[in-house]
Amino acid sequence: MQKLKDRIRREGKVLPGNIIKVDGFLNHRVDTRLMTDMAEEFARLFDVSEITMVLTAEASGIALATICAARYGVPMVFAKKAKSDNIEGGLYQSEIYSYTYKRKVTQILSREWLTAKDRVLIVDDFMANGEAVRGLCDIVSQAGAELVGVGIAVEKGFQGGGDRLRAAGVPYHALAVIDRADEDGIVFRDEA
Amino acid sequence: MQKLKDRIRREGKVLPGNIIKVDGFLNHRVDTRLMTDMAEEFARLFDVSEITMVLTAEASGIALATICAARYGVPMVFAKKAKSDNIEGGLYQSEIYSYTYKRKVTQILSREWLTAKDRVLIVDDFMANGEAVRGLCDIVSQAGAELVGVGIAVEKGFQGGGDRLRAAGVPYHALAVIDRADEDGIVFRDEA
Repeated sequence: MQKLKDRIRREGKVLPGNIIKVDGFLNHRVDTRLMTDMAEEFARLFDVSEITMVLTAEASGIALATICAARYGVPMVFAKKAKSDNIEGGLYQSEIYSYTYKRKVTQILSREWLTAKDRVLIVDDFMANGEAVRGLCDIVSQAGAELVGVGIAVEKGFQGGGDRLRAAGVPYHALAVIDRADEDGIVFRDEA
Repeated sequence: MQKLKDRIRREGKVLPGNIIKVDGFLNHRVDTRLMTDMAEEFARLFDVSEITMVLTAEASGIALATICAARYGVPMVFAKKAKSDNIEGGLYQSEIYSYTYKRKVTQILSREWLTAKDRVLIVDDFMANGEAVRGLCDIVSQAGAELVGVGIAVEKGFQGGGDRLRAAGVPYHALAVIDRADEDGIVFRDEA
């Protein structure tokens, strides 16, 4: 998506450790207009008329997933990190490794809000090693729901998560795939 | 807001410890249509033509704040809980007590994304003791920005946070104020 790639090139910062900082429009301050355009782009790439739900992971995926769900006229559900005691009863659970927090995190989602009748579009802001999305796919599978696709704003193509999904045959699109990010700048993969 | 109160009465569950569970439409699964109506209601209650930003707290406020910001044509910014090492450099910081996690939490917000030129509407899903909003107001104050108002979906009126804001003269509206929640059901305050 050219508009997103232009924005990353203009405002993105590369920090040590392959961290690509786009927190001026994607995951700290959120540009709601750009996200609306991104929701339109996913609607072109996936058959969103078929979905019953947009699923994401707490916390930074929530903004984009909400804009998408509002655009497609369906609810948005987010998997929580297991810490709160406000969720009780039957839960789907998936254990992932968080590279951000450098420890295992358990994603939880109430069984009430995802069932075998659901057709799910997973949306997230970032794809790196793909742990968050792997956990979400696992939750969709536990529910016996149908995975319609996985839509990501920015993929760090050099960290393998996106390519693993492609190899597995999952309907998958990232709106910008970054193949290299270092002191020389940011290089996008052509396909995105 | 009658539609929200009807929904709370129909689907809300009261758990021990005065926990009001509305996670089927507000803070786990999110009803994006209801939230769009809530954004309209805030637009009636506040002068949203004047604001430059909607501010909320990670994580459950993000969905409603995003819908509001998209409706008002401004960015949404959320204060993060200080755990990630992806935020560096100049930060506003505010220490609050989280009753959900039963410990102190530091809210952080990058100085880049909130300045003295901003006119801010704070939006959150829940108001109980008011710690999250107190921290957000503190951050707005640190930035020298103007606080246009505080809009909350559901206030637990019996926990004092909303009344403290009213007493302080802050422009404040909650779309549903719950004055009692126990085994006998949920009682709303008339004004909301």
